[in-house]
Amino acid sequence: MRILGVDPGLTRCGLGVIEAGASRSVALVEVVVATSEPGDEVPRRLAVIASALEAVLDKHRPEAIAIERVFAQLNVRTVMGTAQVSGIVMLAAERRGIPVALYTPSEVKAAITGSGRAAKPQVGQMVRRLLGEGVPSGPADAADALAIAICHAWRGAVAGARAEEGIATPAQARWADAERAARRTRSKPPVP
Amino acid sequence: MRILGVDPGLTRCGLGVIEAGASRSVALVEVVVATSEPGDEVPRRLAVIASALEAVLDKHRPEAIAIERVFAQLNVRTVMGTAQVSGIVMLAAERRGIPVALYTPSEVKAAITGSGRAAKPQVGQMVRRLLGEGVPSGPADAADALAIAICHAWRGAVAGARAEEGIATPAQARWADAERAARRTRSKPPVP
Repeated sequence: MRILGVDPGLTRCGLGVIEAGASRSVALVEVVVATSEPGDEVPRRLAVIASALEAVLDKHRPEAIAIERVFAQLNVRTVMGTAQVSGIVMLAAERRGIPVALYTPSEVKAAITGSGRAAKPQVGQMVRRLLGEGVPSGPADAADALAIAICHAWRGAVAGARAEEGIATPAQARWADAERAARRTRSKPPVP
Repeated sequence: MRILGVDPGLTRCGLGVIEAGASRSVALVEVVVATSEPGDEVPRRLAVIASALEAVLDKHRPEAIAIERVFAQLNVRTVMGTAQVSGIVMLAAERRGIPVALYTPSEVKAAITGSGRAAKPQVGQMVRRLLGEGVPSGPADAADALAIAICHAWRGAVAGARAEEGIATPAQARWADAERAARRTRSKPPVP
């Protein structure tokens, strides 16, 4: 399954495409960081980012788009630009019939490193370990976009499997995990 | 000059078109409030608002678009939706070569009522007084969108006239106003 991960931003917007296969396998397809000039007017800047996005969509035809969810606790100007770009990505996805998933930064970190509070460089290291040396080692936007795509590949797969079991919420999932653990304990052969 | 004023929002987005003429004359062309279902996914909702916007742009071909500037001090979810819609409006404007202007809520209030702290109903009353009974008296979104368009007509005209005088900043404008006032005082005939 081809997945586009988007780290939305007005100055730098990471666009990472991966191919996700069975058993959590992931492979790098392409990653680009679209940039716009901070000195330009916002409408112009949005159009530059939108054109880069559409070029990636045309070239790689992803079956799913995963976007980092925006929060408002940061710098107001930055958040507004990020929200504007994420709106443009969602609209482009909808118009092409591509499903969109949103993940918080800590969901992405937890999926990639096992810890929602992992440092940024650790996420980049894991992404390079998973996808190889094709991942640029420069600014984090490229690795972040790929991390979002991998997060969707893995969480989406888990969510799909759980949905088949009829497990919908995180609480239900924890309950099911606990039940499975209890079954394993119970079925263990008695210690002689 | 045909102006589209936009009160951006994901649940309700006001789109007000006016024709602005000489001597601050303004006339209602059309006003619509685009709505989306709060229960739907955000990409779907953005597409609904974008289609309504594009229908207005196709029908009325405005020469300028004025948008209310978004701030982050309100509810986070609301602000994100508003920023996403404003991004989509700016992108549509840029792609059609229509210039965009942004105004804060208090700039709009001050332009319409003379006070940046005017109450919302007062803005609606002034808009109806200026544009007539074609302005819906229901929810404020319609009147707000028209107020933004009128604000652009008047502030834009003032800014244009001042630019011709070589006056660029508000401080320069205040200085010029003070100079004119002084000239008027000086040229007054002496009291007998």
